[in-house]
Amino acid sequence: MEPAPPPCVVLDQPQLAENIGAAARVMANFGLSELRLVRPRDGWPQERAWASASGADWPLDGARVFDSVEEALADRRLVYACTARPRETELPVHTPGEAARALSAAAAQGLPTAYLFGAERAGLETRAVALCNAILTIPVDPRFRSLNLSHAICVAAYEWRLTVLDAPPEAFRDRAPPAEQEAMLGLYGHLEEELEASGFFHPPEKKPAMVRNLRVALNRARLTDQEVRTFRGVITALVKGRGRTLERLARRGGPRA
Amino acid sequence: MEPAPPPCVVLDQPQLAENIGAAARVMANFGLSELRLVRPRDGWPQERAWASASGADWPLDGARVFDSVEEALADRRLVYACTARPRETELPVHTPGEAARALSAAAAQGLPTAYLFGAERAGLETRAVALCNAILTIPVDPRFRSLNLSHAICVAAYEWRLTVLDAPPEAFRDRAPPAEQEAMLGLYGHLEEELEASGFFHPPEKKPAMVRNLRVALNRARLTDQEVRTFRGVITALVKGRGRTLERLARRGGPRA
Repeated sequence: MEPAPPPCVVLDQPQLAENIGAAARVMANFGLSELRLVRPRDGWPQERAWASASGADWPLDGARVFDSVEEALADRRLVYACTARPRETELPVHTPGEAARALSAAAAQGLPTAYLFGAERAGLETRAVALCNAILTIPVDPRFRSLNLSHAICVAAYEWRLTVLDAPPEAFRDRAPPAEQEAMLGLYGHLEEELEASGFFHPPEKKPAMVRNLRVALNRARLTDQEVRTFRGVITALVKGRGRTLERLARRGGPRA
Repeated sequence: MEPAPPPCVVLDQPQLAENIGAAARVMANFGLSELRLVRPRDGWPQERAWASASGADWPLDGARVFDSVEEALADRRLVYACTARPRETELPVHTPGEAARALSAAAAQGLPTAYLFGAERAGLETRAVALCNAILTIPVDPRFRSLNLSHAICVAAYEWRLTVLDAPPEAFRDRAPPAEQEAMLGLYGHLEEELEASGFFHPPEKKPAMVRNLRVALNRARLTDQEVRTFRGVITALVKGRGRTLERLARRGGPRA
């Protein structure tokens, strides 16, 4: 199956070219590419937008400019208005995750969808919100509600991206596997033998608990085969390295007190 | 019950004051307030940070500056490194949501936690990642991975906020909490000093990678304070115990060949 076409991002009367560039950048991070601008304050195109997109040029290169929100949304079938003032209309109010899942379900049926964002300071006018099907509200801390425009887009786009991913990317799954238990037992045996020789297990009746505690701590680390070898090298080095120092001293006439 | 203390945000060598301000703003949006700066490139404080925080002054007013990541993390017990290059170490790799839930569970037990972010361009050095307990990777589109620093913080902080809103169940784990980073640094220092003395780090140019691998493996174990003490006892025993054996042998006329 073709992947669902991502929602487009519609910015109503954006003020700063830097914010349009930052929007394009975070859209690209999360797999959105279609940008629509309704009456950008300083005109379009603007070089500063490309400068702040850090290479995410394609949403800017392909951006379309509209005279009204109505025109920008004309071909869309499911539109979420992103606003911090959800009570002004009687539209359903969804979290970013709910909105992303609804948009994803619509997109999977081939429906064109959109997120609509307002200007940096003023946000969306109620008139523009009323053109939408539902409201997306970002759950900010009520003590500080003022979201940067590109941060609002970031949250919406991130949630969209989660709907695209069913599982973490492949890259995360190929950690080296944990060592076989046999290798771990070899490591424990080595460590415990050396600790026994050094008088660590004192008093003797506590040895079983001490052994168990050491094994539990090392087990939690889920060591790889390579790490098991490294730790065995550590034990050998600690025991023999210092031993060699003392051997040299002994040959010269005994260790220091 | 007291609400869990939110994680602090540690920025390693941030470059632009505007980004520090944007970080403070989005932290405040999602209920984070404690900001730590490790060697900010242009010094601290900087007016432009306050200008771009749009009124979210308190994370900036309270920001603490550190000379090293080690110092910035010294009192933390669960730290997530935010990096796009999860394969460089053998730490577990979590999504932003998984990380937030783990941090929330730790915070619910009253444990101090942190998110660690790298510089705008370079990201986190592997050495800094190796100080952390796990990795948070944001699931960006592989076609455009370059995240703005404040957008990365936005995603992490937004997911933290969701855990607060979801009123996560209290952690029922009755394990002792993980040790403070400072205690872990003490353990590493002890181990590395003894390994240095024993000639373990050979060839010398490999020492940084060897140190890192050991730290990562031990970090994954999330040792408790008691376990840290136990492992320090192990090191001492391995080094001195065998030494004592050799001392005894030396007094009797030299060690065996």
